[in-house]
Amino acid sequence: MKIPTFEDVKTASDRIRPYIHRTPVLTSSYLNERVGAQLFFKCENFQKAGAFKARGATNAVFSLSDKAAEKGVCTHSSGNHALSLSYASGRRNIPCHVVMPRTAPTAKKDAVRGYGGVITECEPSTSSREAVFSELQAKMGGDFVHPYNDPRVIAGQGTCSLELIEQADGLDIVVAPIGGGGMVSGTCLTLSTLAPETEIIAAEPEQADDAYRSFKAGHIIADDAPNTVADGLKVPLKELTWHFVSNHVTDIFTASEKEIIDAMKLTWKRMKILIEASCAVPLAIILKNPDRFRGKRVGVIITGGNVDLDTLPWI
Amino acid sequence: MKIPTFEDVKTASDRIRPYIHRTPVLTSSYLNERVGAQLFFKCENFQKAGAFKARGATNAVFSLSDKAAEKGVCTHSSGNHALSLSYASGRRNIPCHVVMPRTAPTAKKDAVRGYGGVITECEPSTSSREAVFSELQAKMGGDFVHPYNDPRVIAGQGTCSLELIEQADGLDIVVAPIGGGGMVSGTCLTLSTLAPETEIIAAEPEQADDAYRSFKAGHIIADDAPNTVADGLKVPLKELTWHFVSNHVTDIFTASEKEIIDAMKLTWKRMKILIEASCAVPLAIILKNPDRFRGKRVGVIITGGNVDLDTLPWI
Repeated sequence: MKIPTFEDVKTASDRIRPYIHRTPVLTSSYLNERVGAQLFFKCENFQKAGAFKARGATNAVFSLSDKAAEKGVCTHSSGNHALSLSYASGRRNIPCHVVMPRTAPTAKKDAVRGYGGVITECEPSTSSREAVFSELQAKMGGDFVHPYNDPRVIAGQGTCSLELIEQADGLDIVVAPIGGGGMVSGTCLTLSTLAPETEIIAAEPEQADDAYRSFKAGHIIADDAPNTVADGLKVPLKELTWHFVSNHVTDIFTASEKEIIDAMKLTWKRMKILIEASCAVPLAIILKNPDRFRGKRVGVIITGGNVDLDTLPWI
Repeated sequence: MKIPTFEDVKTASDRIRPYIHRTPVLTSSYLNERVGAQLFFKCENFQKAGAFKARGATNAVFSLSDKAAEKGVCTHSSGNHALSLSYASGRRNIPCHVVMPRTAPTAKKDAVRGYGGVITECEPSTSSREAVFSELQAKMGGDFVHPYNDPRVIAGQGTCSLELIEQADGLDIVVAPIGGGGMVSGTCLTLSTLAPETEIIAAEPEQADDAYRSFKAGHIIADDAPNTVADGLKVPLKELTWHFVSNHVTDIFTASEKEIIDAMKLTWKRMKILIEASCAVPLAIILKNPDRFRGKRVGVIITGGNVDLDTLPWI
């Protein structure tokens, strides 16, 4: 599979500009004081479709030839990629079929349908997801836009840190959550070219720590059905994302379910923004390892804000 | 009592600048499409102490002479003014005593104490609040900074729309929630000078509609203990705020408890920001009266984001 280059990120940036937001970077004097660092939160929860995944999905959809686009696109996703691909397909007015776990948050399923995507449900495991998807794809056709193991998607996600380093220069560290590794790979792709001195730290739930174990072992370890409140981070690394993680990530830290939920609630309370559990993992690991971050300028990627408001994890 | 002038707003703007945020104006393509208007949300939920009241409180605290400041300040408040005054007093390092209803949200009481304010509790009625406060003030001394019937406070709140019209020009209408009328009065003060063609519409809970009834009757009508989820809007108009409301407000609309909660949840879900029930009332009345707003450029003042995350009104 083709490894995307920084040129692909620049092309993606121009291609997706009409369809996505340049999201703001927010700061919190309370959190800066508490950690003893300067934190810069790149707020992709304000992105179109509520998550950074709009970047990669839009890049994939708009890089299709007119002929390829006719058949539309299809994918499997725990949620945000599904609705981002539906959003992007709607902008290009092409069909979009997605396989989602039946346990995915109602808010995300509603949003997929709102953008015109068609959902087929599977069980909440990688094996079920892939089996149901194969069947769907055979039936419907359409270009498969993998949620992360796709060079077009990784190049699209790379546009996020392209903006971040313009908005907050001289970052010592960028922390991003890691599931399948799409955002982390895009971050590696951009920063290894533009800011090679910036460390990239990935943040992962203890209960879905396959990337952490892969990183330590030196090869991909994939769990079939991990269970965590951070529902966007249950999927395993694949060949392309492993390439970037193994070559460019400085370290991976993990956080417990309680630490993730506490960091999520703290962000809501202090910053007045809605963030998903998945993107509370970076703050959770920062609060857990203050010595690693003290005195540094730290970019924190807030990956999404699609939360089921009727079932908050602390209530 | 002295009626503040636009000069006082300009003085306040310079005085408070080091201590408050110039808050962002956000938009939502979803809400614009749904209403058929262009809505500009002035996000005072991102303000210091989580609410616009930091503006008026800071202006009052920093306009005290050094001698007057020694004895500190005191007030009564349903919450946001209490914590804003505590915040401002902390910045000037002077004592701050506040009377709060025992039913005020825990999040607000915690925040007051976090900023160094000292709380005395009262029953949730205007009569109890005023009685407990008189006793406290006699005992502690200190300058009384009324939550809204104070020219320093109104001039401070006027700095919010000063920013808003710089950030979103040519507004046809500005909508703000009304309780005691401090924000609405500050808005009148600024807009009647700088943008006299802009209509000012106040939004009030049906269950605490004393401003609406006052507006229709042509004199102040005060309820003692109204009950609404919009806890910041239970207090009555007073002479100074009545001056501005009766002279400059175009209209007052009301919304039911369900309409307020629905608008609050919709804002959280679509805009990914935490707003209090009190500042969902403007969106509630806009959604309820679309003909009044269609095709207009509408400023909406999001007054605060101090929510008790353990007791959300829709759960």
